[in-house]
Amino acid sequence: MKLLLLNGPNLNRLGQRDPAQYGRQTLAEIVSLVERRARELGVEIVAAQANGEGQLVDLVQKHASDVQGIIVNPGALTHYGYSLRDALADTGLPVVEVHLSNVYAREEWRQRSVIAPIARGKISGLGWRGYLFALEYLVNDLHPVEGNRP
Amino acid sequence: MKLLLLNGPNLNRLGQRDPAQYGRQTLAEIVSLVERRARELGVEIVAAQANGEGQLVDLVQKHASDVQGIIVNPGALTHYGYSLRDALADTGLPVVEVHLSNVYAREEWRQRSVIAPIARGKISGLGWRGYLFALEYLVNDLHPVEGNRP
Amino acid sequence: MKLLLLNGPNLNRLGQRDPAQYGRQTLAEIVSLVERRARELGVEIVAAQANGEGQLVDLVQKHASDVQGIIVNPGALTHYGYSLRDALADTGLPVVEVHLSNVYAREEWRQRSVIAPIARGKISGLGWRGYLFALEYLVNDLHPVEGNRP
Amino acid sequence: MKLLLLNGPNLNRLGQRDPAQYGRQTLAEIVSLVERRARELGVEIVAAQANGEGQLVDLVQKHASDVQGIIVNPGALTHYGYSLRDALADTGLPVVEVHLSNVYAREEWRQRSVIAPIARGKISGLGWRGYLFALEYLVNDLHPVEGNRP
Amino acid sequence: MKLLLLNGPNLNRLGQRDPAQYGRQTLAEIVSLVERRARELGVEIVAAQANGEGQLVDLVQKHASDVQGIIVNPGALTHYGYSLRDALADTGLPVVEVHLSNVYAREEWRQRSVIAPIARGKISGLGWRGYLFALEYLVNDLHPVEGNRP
Amino acid sequence: MKLLLLNGPNLNRLGQRDPAQYGRQTLAEIVSLVERRARELGVEIVAAQANGEGQLVDLVQKHASDVQGIIVNPGALTHYGYSLRDALADTGLPVVEVHLSNVYAREEWRQRSVIAPIARGKISGLGWRGYLFALEYLVNDLHPVEGNRP
Amino acid sequence: MKLLLLNGPNLNRLGQRDPAQYGRQTLAEIVSLVERRARELGVEIVAAQANGEGQLVDLVQKHASDVQGIIVNPGALTHYGYSLRDALADTGLPVVEVHLSNVYAREEWRQRSVIAPIARGKISGLGWRGYLFALEYLVNDLHPVEGNRP
Amino acid sequence: MKLLLLNGPNLNRLGQRDPAQYGRQTLAEIVSLVERRARELGVEIVAAQANGEGQLVDLVQKHASDVQGIIVNPGALTHYGYSLRDALADTGLPVVEVHLSNVYAREEWRQRSVIAPIARGKISGLGWRGYLFALEYLVNDLHPVEGNRP
Amino acid sequence: MKLLLLNGPNLNRLGQRDPAQYGRQTLAEIVSLVERRARELGVEIVAAQANGEGQLVDLVQKHASDVQGIIVNPGALTHYGYSLRDALADTGLPVVEVHLSNVYAREEWRQRSVIAPIARGKISGLGWRGYLFALEYLVNDLHPVEGNRP
Amino acid sequence: MKLLLLNGPNLNRLGQRDPAQYGRQTLAEIVSLVERRARELGVEIVAAQANGEGQLVDLVQKHASDVQGIIVNPGALTHYGYSLRDALADTGLPVVEVHLSNVYAREEWRQRSVIAPIARGKISGLGWRGYLFALEYLVNDLHPVEGNRP
Amino acid sequence: MKLLLLNGPNLNRLGQRDPAQYGRQTLAEIVSLVERRARELGVEIVAAQANGEGQLVDLVQKHASDVQGIIVNPGALTHYGYSLRDALADTGLPVVEVHLSNVYAREEWRQRSVIAPIARGKISGLGWRGYLFALEYLVNDLHPVEGNRP
Amino acid sequence: MKLLLLNGPNLNRLGQRDPAQYGRQTLAEIVSLVERRARELGVEIVAAQANGEGQLVDLVQKHASDVQGIIVNPGALTHYGYSLRDALADTGLPVVEVHLSNVYAREEWRQRSVIAPIARGKISGLGWRGYLFALEYLVNDLHPVEGNRP
Repeated sequence: MKLLLLNGPNLNRLGQRDPAQYGRQTLAEIVSLVERRARELGVEIVAAQANGEGQLVDLVQKHASDVQGIIVNPGALTHYGYSLRDALADTGLPVVEVHLSNVYAREEWRQRSVIAPIARGKISGLGWRGYLFALEYLVNDLHPVEGNRP
Repeated sequence: MKLLLLNGPNLNRLGQRDPAQYGRQTLAEIVSLVERRARELGVEIVAAQANGEGQLVDLVQKHASDVQGIIVNPGALTHYGYSLRDALADTGLPVVEVHLSNVYAREEWRQRSVIAPIARGKISGLGWRGYLFALEYLVNDLHPVEGNRP
Repeated sequence: MKLLLLNGPNLNRLGQRDPAQYGRQTLAEIVSLVERRARELGVEIVAAQANGEGQLVDLVQKHASDVQGIIVNPGALTHYGYSLRDALADTGLPVVEVHLSNVYAREEWRQRSVIAPIARGKISGLGWRGYLFALEYLVNDLHPVEGNRP
Repeated sequence: MKLLLLNGPNLNRLGQRDPAQYGRQTLAEIVSLVERRARELGVEIVAAQANGEGQLVDLVQKHASDVQGIIVNPGALTHYGYSLRDALADTGLPVVEVHLSNVYAREEWRQRSVIAPIARGKISGLGWRGYLFALEYLVNDLHPVEGNRP
Repeated sequence: MKLLLLNGPNLNRLGQRDPAQYGRQTLAEIVSLVERRARELGVEIVAAQANGEGQLVDLVQKHASDVQGIIVNPGALTHYGYSLRDALADTGLPVVEVHLSNVYAREEWRQRSVIAPIARGKISGLGWRGYLFALEYLVNDLHPVEGNRP
Repeated sequence: MKLLLLNGPNLNRLGQRDPAQYGRQTLAEIVSLVERRARELGVEIVAAQANGEGQLVDLVQKHASDVQGIIVNPGALTHYGYSLRDALADTGLPVVEVHLSNVYAREEWRQRSVIAPIARGKISGLGWRGYLFALEYLVNDLHPVEGNRP
Repeated sequence: MKLLLLNGPNLNRLGQRDPAQYGRQTLAEIVSLVERRARELGVEIVAAQANGEGQLVDLVQKHASDVQGIIVNPGALTHYGYSLRDALADTGLPVVEVHLSNVYAREEWRQRSVIAPIARGKISGLGWRGYLFALEYLVNDLHPVEGNRP
Repeated sequence: MKLLLLNGPNLNRLGQRDPAQYGRQTLAEIVSLVERRARELGVEIVAAQANGEGQLVDLVQKHASDVQGIIVNPGALTHYGYSLRDALADTGLPVVEVHLSNVYAREEWRQRSVIAPIARGKISGLGWRGYLFALEYLVNDLHPVEGNRP
Repeated sequence: MKLLLLNGPNLNRLGQRDPAQYGRQTLAEIVSLVERRARELGVEIVAAQANGEGQLVDLVQKHASDVQGIIVNPGALTHYGYSLRDALADTGLPVVEVHLSNVYAREEWRQRSVIAPIARGKISGLGWRGYLFALEYLVNDLHPVEGNRP
Repeated sequence: MKLLLLNGPNLNRLGQRDPAQYGRQTLAEIVSLVERRARELGVEIVAAQANGEGQLVDLVQKHASDVQGIIVNPGALTHYGYSLRDALADTGLPVVEVHLSNVYAREEWRQRSVIAPIARGKISGLGWRGYLFALEYLVNDLHPVEGNRP
Repeated sequence: MKLLLLNGPNLNRLGQRDPAQYGRQTLAEIVSLVERRARELGVEIVAAQANGEGQLVDLVQKHASDVQGIIVNPGALTHYGYSLRDALADTGLPVVEVHLSNVYAREEWRQRSVIAPIARGKISGLGWRGYLFALEYLVNDLHPVEGNRP
Repeated sequence: MKLLLLNGPNLNRLGQRDPAQYGRQTLAEIVSLVERRARELGVEIVAAQANGEGQLVDLVQKHASDVQGIIVNPGALTHYGYSLRDALADTGLPVVEVHLSNVYAREEWRQRSVIAPIARGKISGLGWRGYLFALEYLVNDLHPVEGNRP
């Protein structure tokens, strides 16, 4: 089982971006945390980041047939990236949208997501753990483990 | 450490409500899953549900000084329950908003949350696991465990 | 066959509320008229009124498995009672929304109903007869009588 | 006592229009049902249908001095037919607006009525029985029968 | 010189329509007043009224090449009659829009005119004199009389 | 009988302002035309112009008890001059609002009048003749002349 | 003479709620201040608080025939509590709406009051003194004292 | 195979209407071009035009059972003709909406189509050729010719 | 201690303006009432009124350094007087906004205040007593008297 | 004569994207169909696709001086790609916007085009034939063929 | 060459107004800086300030024929001063709008300028240097100096 | 001291883009003018242009630690480029937004800037000189020169 972990514009600057909103971990550290947990769950992670919507669409298209699910933090593209939305929806794969900060406590425009309507779910404001939760959800949703079910 | 697990209107009907949106678990089953995981983490859960906003405000006020965080699924009150919002904000406690269904893929009015701006974060669409993720977040946020940090 | 006749906030004040809008009958008189007609049609009525949305949700949940249809006048909750809407929708029963006054000739906000989209139909402005019409509709819709069909 | 039963655009197609929304009765069958009940109540019905707003205004003006009330299903003109509204209001007669389908469970624009503010009441979603209910209301409102009063 | 005096839906009811808004003169009386004044000014009037937008468009098209200007009271079509607007604009003739009542002191929707942007001017609230003023304007605008100029 | 002829900001520049919109007459010339016609009708004109809303309010208050009606061209204050509106409404006098240009064929914001709802009527786009028409209306409305009635 | 002093959701937490907005007095202290001043004015106070809209409606209905006026701080229900509005309006009593904080300097949604249109007046931002001012107003309005009149 | 070619208000004036927007061909010339091409494709054309919405609804109803598809240029009714929309939708036939001018480069209100959501497609701004393209589309869609398929 | 009592456009007409809204007292009488009470409280009042926003800004600037607080009834400028708002805010003094009428029960536009967000509080609908309450508030807020505190 | 055939984000996935909306042809197949028809018309096609707006702007700039017209399907950029709009407008070339699906029968946001106002025309919902129609239009518009003219 | 330097309401308070937004220079100091630089460029400055819109309109009209350009900081009138806009536009002179603070980082309403659409350009947020830049622009635009051209 | 001079989509076409809006200088010429003036001020310029938002974000990130300020003309991305906004804000550097044309006199959508709220200031409509003014501002703001201060 393989999952795409896709990060959008400015997330390569994590650790340096306003830590009150985004935390102190770098993107490399977060990817490493996700990979470590993924290994425990027997899952492979393909991690990618890009600042351009076109590149993100390219990445989604490139990995669509390799992976079984997508964890995406579209950064500011969340709010207007309809091309990325179409790319994600076209894959037919389960998608979980993750935001480090609580977008609902910030500018009005950050509260609208053009991605969420085609996702399975959305996690915001829980910092780097949001990525881990998305991973747990997708793994269980795709390969439900006995002991983990209610 | 103690957390309030608060569920709003109609969530006592889980298991019977439209399973395509809300899943097949009853509220009792979900509470039991949260309590089991809480015990593992050394945390106590106070679980409560009510259909009226006034009762929910009463519950928040009653437990505010006993608990260190709140997991809340305000049901339809999410979209207009400003009294509940004020009650939650007045506690000064960290709050995580949880929705079983992906509210962003449903009616327009379900996409507005009057609670989220005063919460730490929001999880939607990840089913009953959303409650567990909220639990993990709050426990780690309040009592960060060494091995769990990046 | 049994139907729930549910009245929302301030409808217990009928007869005293502005008669130009709501007519001169008390709620007891209206319920009695509906019961008399129901008996003629071989139907039982469970009548209830409450001023709180939570109580109304409780009432809907309590009677959902006993009755085959619901006549509801949600009072001012019509315009913002999403919890009541969810409760009614969750029953899966046919619902008819009734208003004594013509809400379309009053304040702008009275023209929006959050209940109507999940109801079978809506009657407004026809006074206490609206309840009788809702009764006739539900009885015929559920137990279509030969002589009454086109 | 005489009432105008006026049907607007496309209602001459009843029976053929989408039966899930409009039922299986033709307009002729519905008119006949209304006339049968009217005869029982000692009332005469003038039935008319037209697809053009101008024709409907002509019909209202032509019958305004002959009838004591109007049952109108303005079809799609409900949502923009201000000329028809003015014609109906100018008569000074009691008007009941009827819709076969539940307009509140359909497209957004079907939820706005420019007619309702000048009507006595509005019935929607109760199928062909809506016309009968409008008839009963007008007859009782104009000639209240003893046994029928509360 | 010839002018078209065109009246829209329900204006054939003048004298009977709400006199507080529309005055006590019938349309025939108003047309007669306009014709009398037109004769004094050496101008011919073609007067027409219709309740349907299609008929009004037909009338505009029929007279477009005969007349040198148009006085129009589009009645309620003022607010949504884009077809009439296009017909009037297509003539390339000077148009004056007239309303008997002060539309700005009535319902919100009466304040929007889809005709006014393609007219030379608009007169509202001055009763039947508004038609005479429109006549004076067009006559002077088309055939400026010496003594009448500043 | 005396009327106030009040002109608002920038109308002292008539003749120099964009003649395509406002015509070639100066304000003095227009006032003189109005006065000439007023004399013929046996009416006295008090003419005033000011660029400030406060001054216009002062002028309205000063003349309110002297005059029997007001002709006002509020210039750009038409669109936001609520203080002037209140001053005019407080007089209880009949007011006619006049605009030289057709405000409906210009910027969106020029189409909203905060004055019109408290006026008797509004004339726009008929150039300087609009003032004369307002004069005729007020004189006839206040002192209806026999030969001038229908 | 008797007045109802009604406080809505979360106002039982005064003294503990954000003191920058709501001041340091508890609700008990404020009620006591109002009662002291009421005694001086020869007026009796019935004080009540509830967190649920239904309970507040119940309270209004219960005391409507006992009291001659109502001082109400509806808390967050101010912004959506149409049921409370209807209950207050149904009493026909003079109502004064009081807010401790200046709602106009806070979130956008706090600036809309669904109560104010049916109240006599509204006081906001003057802290606990607002209640005293409402008391003075109602007492004088109902029993105008000689020495207190202009 | 037969198709209805339906033109709405003012399109009978083509050739005379503003040629910069609508081109220089008369409606007769365009119909003739469409018929010529239709004959080549072995298709019969029923062409009709009317200025009134009611007449257009009549035409759609009259031909609905004769034809296999509809090419419609609803003129200004495009923007508010919900009755025409319902008539077209009720036929269950494939509909192509055609506009001669590029409605997106004109007034804001011309950009909204109430017809397009129930059509197969829409062509605008390509002049008279738009009708030919609609013809080609419908013929191929209904009778796909081998050599014409990809 | 000195306070500025500032009244805006048309308030010099109090006593003559619609008494149903504004009461029967003249501005002079109200100022005199405020001064009498101020003397009792040992406070000096500087009273001023103007109809122009510019004059009001001048007055605020002139007295800003002399006074310790401002009672302002901005009249219709309340709804658009951003210059007055800036002037008041620039003083850094506590401001109380007063309206004689209940602006929330009148036209929609009267419900928006551009002043309130920079004021300490707002009183509306309590007639001339509103000014006295504002006075009491400011005096106590600035010089809290022992016996007057909770 | 040469034309640019430009396709935006996700259109490289045609054939795989939801065939109910976009048809079963791959982009290569469609380009090949367009090229075949272009050869028949003696026109050369430059075909390009990219997923990024920047790349599409680059492509427009690169080919602007080589081609005489542009056929563009901007994909989801249609709805927010103002940079692409500026690039297309800057070329001064005739542009035809093509959509495979009927955007008017899908999500609300797909109905707004930021490209259409600067295009000659727009074709939507006619599948791959839309590209051929755009080609025919541009060829005839630029090199009008005798036999093809009316 | 002469330029008008016009400052609107509250700008006479510069130096005392919130320095974080407006800087520490008084208006006199800024005018003096502008005059010094103007002298270097051989240009004369007419500086004026007023708090009332009417006075500002008077100033614009008074100097319109003397000056060749206008530098204007309309203060809060920027957002609603349509009379000032008309006055500036009527001059036909090049106008540059200057704001000391970055209006885009402040209240929503400060972001709308009714002046900017008729200006040549707008500078905001660059403090007192904004005035100098406006001066340089106008001087070069009107009298382009050789060495200063590209 | 070093500054980043960043130009967005289509600005590489300056000189060829509509000269009425953008002037006749090429981007190279403008950069050269800025560099010349920068050298005089002892400042180094890093100039870059790109058509893609992703590339612009890359450029901002690449130079963020090298430069002390940013002059940016985001082209059409001004109106929706939230990713670029975040990139610029993340640098923590002073940013000046420059537009060659007066965006306020063009299409409505050009008047919204998503960049301006995080910039120090904005210059529009002053042509290529706007870049020089931004340069002067940043240099003085960062290294205030004695003789240049007030």
